[in-house]
Amino acid sequence: MAVIDINADLGEGFGVWTLGDDTALLDVVTSANVACGFHAGDPLIMRRVCEAAVARGVAVGAQVSYRDLAGFGRREMDVAPEELAAEVLYQLAALDGIARTAGGRVSYVKPHGALYNRIARDAVQARAVVEAVEAYDASLPLLTLPGSAVRGVAGALTVVAECYADRAYTPEGSLVSRRLPGAVVHDTDAVVERAVRMAVEGVVTAVDGTDVRVAARSLCVHGDTPGAVSLARAVREALAGAGVDVRPFAS
Amino acid sequence: MAVIDINADLGEGFGVWTLGDDTALLDVVTSANVACGFHAGDPLIMRRVCEAAVARGVAVGAQVSYRDLAGFGRREMDVAPEELAAEVLYQLAALDGIARTAGGRVSYVKPHGALYNRIARDAVQARAVVEAVEAYDASLPLLTLPGSAVRGVAGALTVVAECYADRAYTPEGSLVSRRLPGAVVHDTDAVVERAVRMAVEGVVTAVDGTDVRVAARSLCVHGDTPGAVSLARAVREALAGAGVDVRPFAS
Amino acid sequence: MAVIDINADLGEGFGVWTLGDDTALLDVVTSANVACGFHAGDPLIMRRVCEAAVARGVAVGAQVSYRDLAGFGRREMDVAPEELAAEVLYQLAALDGIARTAGGRVSYVKPHGALYNRIARDAVQARAVVEAVEAYDASLPLLTLPGSAVRGVAGALTVVAECYADRAYTPEGSLVSRRLPGAVVHDTDAVVERAVRMAVEGVVTAVDGTDVRVAARSLCVHGDTPGAVSLARAVREALAGAGVDVRPFAS
Amino acid sequence: MAVIDINADLGEGFGVWTLGDDTALLDVVTSANVACGFHAGDPLIMRRVCEAAVARGVAVGAQVSYRDLAGFGRREMDVAPEELAAEVLYQLAALDGIARTAGGRVSYVKPHGALYNRIARDAVQARAVVEAVEAYDASLPLLTLPGSAVRGVAGALTVVAECYADRAYTPEGSLVSRRLPGAVVHDTDAVVERAVRMAVEGVVTAVDGTDVRVAARSLCVHGDTPGAVSLARAVREALAGAGVDVRPFAS
Repeated sequence: MAVIDINADLGEGFGVWTLGDDTALLDVVTSANVACGFHAGDPLIMRRVCEAAVARGVAVGAQVSYRDLAGFGRREMDVAPEELAAEVLYQLAALDGIARTAGGRVSYVKPHGALYNRIARDAVQARAVVEAVEAYDASLPLLTLPGSAVRGVAGALTVVAECYADRAYTPEGSLVSRRLPGAVVHDTDAVVERAVRMAVEGVVTAVDGTDVRVAARSLCVHGDTPGAVSLARAVREALAGAGVDVRPFAS
Repeated sequence: MAVIDINADLGEGFGVWTLGDDTALLDVVTSANVACGFHAGDPLIMRRVCEAAVARGVAVGAQVSYRDLAGFGRREMDVAPEELAAEVLYQLAALDGIARTAGGRVSYVKPHGALYNRIARDAVQARAVVEAVEAYDASLPLLTLPGSAVRGVAGALTVVAECYADRAYTPEGSLVSRRLPGAVVHDTDAVVERAVRMAVEGVVTAVDGTDVRVAARSLCVHGDTPGAVSLARAVREALAGAGVDVRPFAS
Repeated sequence: MAVIDINADLGEGFGVWTLGDDTALLDVVTSANVACGFHAGDPLIMRRVCEAAVARGVAVGAQVSYRDLAGFGRREMDVAPEELAAEVLYQLAALDGIARTAGGRVSYVKPHGALYNRIARDAVQARAVVEAVEAYDASLPLLTLPGSAVRGVAGALTVVAECYADRAYTPEGSLVSRRLPGAVVHDTDAVVERAVRMAVEGVVTAVDGTDVRVAARSLCVHGDTPGAVSLARAVREALAGAGVDVRPFAS
Repeated sequence: MAVIDINADLGEGFGVWTLGDDTALLDVVTSANVACGFHAGDPLIMRRVCEAAVARGVAVGAQVSYRDLAGFGRREMDVAPEELAAEVLYQLAALDGIARTAGGRVSYVKPHGALYNRIARDAVQARAVVEAVEAYDASLPLLTLPGSAVRGVAGALTVVAECYADRAYTPEGSLVSRRLPGAVVHDTDAVVERAVRMAVEGVVTAVDGTDVRVAARSLCVHGDTPGAVSLARAVREALAGAGVDVRPFAS
């Protein structure tokens, strides 16, 4: 029986500001990437999201980031590795403590934004992230871009790749750059169909029309754009309808 | 045999900035109140201080604060209780996670600056701090001002009062306000003598010349003013010379 | 001919986060209280709001605040007066420089949130705000709560009171506390009618049914709640319909 | 008669933290690069440094930076150009307003740290900085690294190169990378002698022993390392002794 996880970014408000519909999204996903205060997410938001996630059986992941509220963690920063490791450790520990008081715990780590992209190609920063997770709890898996450089420096850490039903793939199985036309699939039916094929068959149709293997245990959906939540809901329903077992990849 | 703990604030730099001589102070104190990032202390400083404290057998305490880097946590803020509780929890969990990766753990909580003073008289904010510590680990003692309002709302939490060898006391056993003349004792010999009497006899000479009871398990020393470290060292040596067992109040 | 200004808070997003509909509101108001980066508003948002305000002939005011992004400037802070004065000066100068590159300039100052309320009763902080504005440009008026303590310490500065069509008034002409029932008028027609009477007759019906004098040159409207913009638009249209000259109070 | 300016970074504390000896340095330099709050410098520090600089006839420059207090502006950031321009404008305007209330004004702009280095090779970020300065006051010169890419995109702005008496130069006139041995000249007499030759003859001895032309109108000195202020003072005295007219490059 096919099995897949659905993950999304949550708790990405700050103070008076909100982003996306956390409550609606928590009814769709099986894993919540919770912002830890460095790109978004204040302690009260973190606590509420953890409580809501635990109440629904949704797994809590630490969405660690560069320290960059003004840029929402989307700007690459040349952070020295020992600083980066300490910053990741700080965020991870803070969220885990909050999740534990809510009756749960952090069960995986997903770097956010520019850090997510940077460690896919920068082994030094990747190693700093790995070092922090290893130091805290070496049993926590790291959720990353497929083909990320993290894999090469992850040591004993488990690295889990995610896939995207709304992104175009090259015949080699990597994502088409967002700078190129057609990088994002906008048609709802197409996105839903791709999600089901990814989960059931482990393949996706690449931009050249061929099928390419996508061995991903988690599917990333979005919640901060118009229509995003209903698209995520449609994906989840289609997966259930296709007999896919939708559950967290980390337990 | 008399027993006392010596505590001081540590890790109160931020980024390129430093404050006090952490290394020298760690050889004097038995408990380190480590800044958690909200008034001072970045993750790398926190990690290094925890490693150095653990290496010396110095207990690590969470010096939680209002979110106020610009004011060093010295300005009272009207933070709503559920926000304050979440902020305390965040800081406490972050430091504890860092301390654990260094082979130790947080063994007590000492609110900093304006928060320390505020909860001595504001039961709502005091209760918020207590709620956070209870939620995280109800076995952690809270280190506070003698006579703090915290005691009334602490529930099952242990509340430990500290004393100050360099501060004048009223005949009732409370501190003379810093706004009044003579609030601070500047003479080294006098400070050292007061520290020893506090530890050995449990008393201090009040401003009216009478002895007043000071039932404190911990003595607070400072490290961020000229001569502070050598004064702290003199206090520690005199306590040892008087046969006092100087060790952490929390284990 | 009756004349009144309509002011609202604008530019209160930060980075990726938005708050309210600035563009819609700019077509309704004659004065824009632009956030200056301390409670909200990043430099790019400030620049865009200034450009849009200047393009529409809307006056730009500096909405200066405590340094408190996490609390949106809504939490009172015990900031020392010389620090507060420097912070107000910094924000005012930054916004004025940005407004000037957009072809306009700051033409008034309106403290935000907790600072707005604090200086209505705290003469020390009020004097610090006044000192900053005087130092920068003593011709800039200060927009405040009616009956604010600012008036007593404003020296040569012009102090302008604002009124609120959606707030209940006591027979003495002050606002009914938000903690009391009936503090906010929710009925659209009532709000519109009150706004017109305030502008045309200079009175409002107090909670006891009597008319009370409201000598305000500016009417404050909101843009960050559901229906707020359409209510503001209805107020503006009704004022125009009643022959009121709606234009900035500061030129 | 030879003429040169001496510039140094000032006002680089934040809140309770200090860095370097501003007062001593202000008696040595003729131009003060004042931190504007993004990498260091809070509004009160800015105000005090401006007052002290104006009192001594020292020119005030805006030391604009990436928004990075935790990293002291030393980490490169991929800031989008319109964001960067707005951030530079904000800092420049804030400092200029503060300087004006102190009786002076900003008379040049010197980007700080990672931004200084980045715009020496990144034309997009360089152009963003230039755009901000042009928009604010196109008569303000930009103080930069010799050979900076800024020159190519500066349009009508004046670009002024600075030189460093304590850095080794290549025979081509560029700085030897700090990663290479011998990049920094530590001998006081050598630094003083190099400073005088730079000012009087416009040359410096390169690493290969040849003389290389250094056409710099300003000499950068440091104040935040042990002995830095006395070295700066020695340089200033030697320049005076050699008959060099030491005065601001911007008026």
